[in-house]
Amino acid sequence: MYHDFKLIEGRPVSIQVKDYMKRLMIKGALQPHQKLPSTRELGVLLGVSRNTVIAAYAELADEGRVYALQGKGNYVSEDSAGSAAPSSLSWQLPWKERLSRQALLAEELDLMKRGIRAGKDTISFTSIAPDEKLFDLDHVKQAFLGRMSVEGHVLLNYGYAKGYKPLIQYLMTYMENKGVDVQGKDMLITAGFTEGFDLVLAALQQKHGAVICENPTHHTAIKNLKLHGFDIKGVTMEPDGIHLGELERALEERPYDCAYFVPSYHNPTGIVMSMEKRLALMQLMSRYEIPVIEDGFNEELRYSGAHVPPLIASAGSGNSVIYIGSFSKVLFPGLRVGWVLADRELIDYLESMKRARNIHTSTLDQSLLYQYLHNGNLHKYLKRARAEYKRKYELTLQTCKAFVPYKTLSGDGGLHLFVTFREACSVRELLEACTRQGVIFTLGHHFFTDGRGSNTLRLGFSRVADEDIVRGIRIIGDTAKQLWGLE
Amino acid sequence: MYHDFKLIEGRPVSIQVKDYMKRLMIKGALQPHQKLPSTRELGVLLGVSRNTVIAAYAELADEGRVYALQGKGNYVSEDSAGSAAPSSLSWQLPWKERLSRQALLAEELDLMKRGIRAGKDTISFTSIAPDEKLFDLDHVKQAFLGRMSVEGHVLLNYGYAKGYKPLIQYLMTYMENKGVDVQGKDMLITAGFTEGFDLVLAALQQKHGAVICENPTHHTAIKNLKLHGFDIKGVTMEPDGIHLGELERALEERPYDCAYFVPSYHNPTGIVMSMEKRLALMQLMSRYEIPVIEDGFNEELRYSGAHVPPLIASAGSGNSVIYIGSFSKVLFPGLRVGWVLADRELIDYLESMKRARNIHTSTLDQSLLYQYLHNGNLHKYLKRARAEYKRKYELTLQTCKAFVPYKTLSGDGGLHLFVTFREACSVRELLEACTRQGVIFTLGHHFFTDGRGSNTLRLGFSRVADEDIVRGIRIIGDTAKQLWGLE
Repeated sequence: MYHDFKLIEGRPVSIQVKDYMKRLMIKGALQPHQKLPSTRELGVLLGVSRNTVIAAYAELADEGRVYALQGKGNYVSEDSAGSAAPSSLSWQLPWKERLSRQALLAEELDLMKRGIRAGKDTISFTSIAPDEKLFDLDHVKQAFLGRMSVEGHVLLNYGYAKGYKPLIQYLMTYMENKGVDVQGKDMLITAGFTEGFDLVLAALQQKHGAVICENPTHHTAIKNLKLHGFDIKGVTMEPDGIHLGELERALEERPYDCAYFVPSYHNPTGIVMSMEKRLALMQLMSRYEIPVIEDGFNEELRYSGAHVPPLIASAGSGNSVIYIGSFSKVLFPGLRVGWVLADRELIDYLESMKRARNIHTSTLDQSLLYQYLHNGNLHKYLKRARAEYKRKYELTLQTCKAFVPYKTLSGDGGLHLFVTFREACSVRELLEACTRQGVIFTLGHHFFTDGRGSNTLRLGFSRVADEDIVRGIRIIGDTAKQLWGLE
Repeated sequence: MYHDFKLIEGRPVSIQVKDYMKRLMIKGALQPHQKLPSTRELGVLLGVSRNTVIAAYAELADEGRVYALQGKGNYVSEDSAGSAAPSSLSWQLPWKERLSRQALLAEELDLMKRGIRAGKDTISFTSIAPDEKLFDLDHVKQAFLGRMSVEGHVLLNYGYAKGYKPLIQYLMTYMENKGVDVQGKDMLITAGFTEGFDLVLAALQQKHGAVICENPTHHTAIKNLKLHGFDIKGVTMEPDGIHLGELERALEERPYDCAYFVPSYHNPTGIVMSMEKRLALMQLMSRYEIPVIEDGFNEELRYSGAHVPPLIASAGSGNSVIYIGSFSKVLFPGLRVGWVLADRELIDYLESMKRARNIHTSTLDQSLLYQYLHNGNLHKYLKRARAEYKRKYELTLQTCKAFVPYKTLSGDGGLHLFVTFREACSVRELLEACTRQGVIFTLGHHFFTDGRGSNTLRLGFSRVADEDIVRGIRIIGDTAKQLWGLE
């Protein structure tokens, strides 16, 4: 006994001794009423000071796990033992048979559990998360300490389901500056885009059980739409956004409960919908009275070109657009903060749903983000990030043009490009061949609502080093040419 | 124009000027191709330096909202105007008619929207949140800075749906030290207890559509059970926990999908279930093969008495107990961190559901909490908090005994007491009379599964000053005596 005690760094030693002794009691290695080694003895056995053991024993006594007998030493308490459960209580439940459709489907559709694992040294184009090397940690620390010194006690206690008020105010102005008429609208802070989307889908009555969206579209959105039981109608993408004719025909054919669009840096195609198309799209939505969920994905990552207001701005004083925003891709995904901007009455219901689900979003995340934004750091950061991502974007674009035998290539900015090969080409085969050469990417078909896209792939470049972008894309291109005899 | 510019503190002035000008463009006060004041002029008009205006104009040009004409000055861009929506796009949707049953019910059951607002100087016994004056902010800051310096870049990028690994490891050991056999079990980190509970309920197949629990019980749990459509069977509480005879009769009568119990510092009665009762309870659950959701509520707030292991410890190697823990009430509710400890296969499904709902819990919250715990701060904090809460607990208890004409009074510790008057007494009337005298508390009937409890109330004392505890409870007692002619 006492030979397997190992000190870990940075944790008070007396607590480690206490935990260690507790473990021995629970495992039954120390029995109730057994005498413990003297403090001097245990200090020697564990290689710690006597005072440390004295502190540990005092803590154990305080927790009722040890009692002292005057002049005799310390003993293990009656209640301290592990409660060896009678075997009658240890029954096994076949959990899988007790699970809901939602639980089973969530696991089945969980791409993170199905993806290829990237080995070390693999060049991976699968991520569109920001490059953490760009993070300005000093400003983050500053924001945290600044906010904590203003109202640390308040931040650590319960907050509001609707969100941290200064952040809401900041973001309302932020959205107003994008041209949104905020009269009659309100905002709910969520744990990122995904929570906002999930809440909105749960709040919608399924009168028709169907949603219309772009095809391809954000695979997480497809997953959540399926989990909520919606039929999904995807409408083909053109180089400047959704195919309006096809959209109109679909709208004539059957009713929909809502539409979901990603007008800027559309995931996965990277397309920014033109202003004309945005207005025409909104005309159709208005005519068919379909509420729109707008995914404000990466709107901030404009490398060039004019300011394009979001769909919710085009709706003016109308209340039919639900805008869901997030700084996750642009700033820090580890901070789970997003927002839903929508009709005030709707937000009121969403607030109650949010409260029922998790009380509120982390106040620390919200207040840190608020202070970071308030300090004017976003602008500085975006300048630097945009310059870096733009360089990578252009490198990726040029390298694809030089080496990849694609049919079409899309991406007006953002953190990824979308590649389409000839119909017959199986990108799954290409991925297998590339994986063997240490290069991976995301299969495009995950983004399609109708099983198509087996000839497409998404290339995320945000976290790939320049030389790896060139090397990786050459390998993809060369392999594609070999595989399909293309030139 | 330019007269309503107001500087706010702490935000870079050039950004404030930029935002202000942007707003004028969006409101149409500045029209496309209109000439802007010179930098010197605008500096004078807004009371800022010329260099600040130069920086603001440069930012606006960078965003494509302003263009410069050599030697002539700066002009508003074409695209900069607010997109005044054609009125045809501004249609109004009657949201309430489009909402799901879940959304409507969540709002209806949202007590936060139905509660009485406490005016200034009101003595409020409604909260059982921790007293923020006890928070050790210096240790929190230290934990944050410590973790950021170790792996700040990693913390701010995406984490894992299952949770932050060091925290999971810490908590697994923590639970092992409570006597839990962790073999075959796993852990999911959630945004507090509530999210864990909501996820588990969504994961359960509703074969019978019914849940059995204590009556009264945690009102948030009742709300979530209702939102998930469960029938709720509540079993009467005795002074040492649930009434076993009544429980057994209920189990004989019909099948249940699961049970929900709060064995320690039961909310709202404050009762700690005896060890004998825990074992007998688990025998029954085992016999009827009912999975148990255990709410580890405030287990840490033991003021005296022996260590009582949680139900999941009694189940030994069995996999039928789902333990949901949180430090919210004990430590910092603003950090939304809880955990679900359960069968490994079940956790695997819950992980996919969590990912679909919000990707993962805030890494900042998790890593800060981990570092705080690792540094050994919990023990120090709990010592101080327990001493403080114990004093308040005893004061509340004594004052109730002295002044309140209750029939029974319960609470073995924790942050609240539960008061039951004679059957006929309407606590709602009492609350109305007390509110007029500046004292409020929580109506007990919110905690009942069957509409009973109109003669009960909960007194949360954690955030009430000593003198207010005495003054407030005297008022409650005196008012009750007057109202009901009791002595």
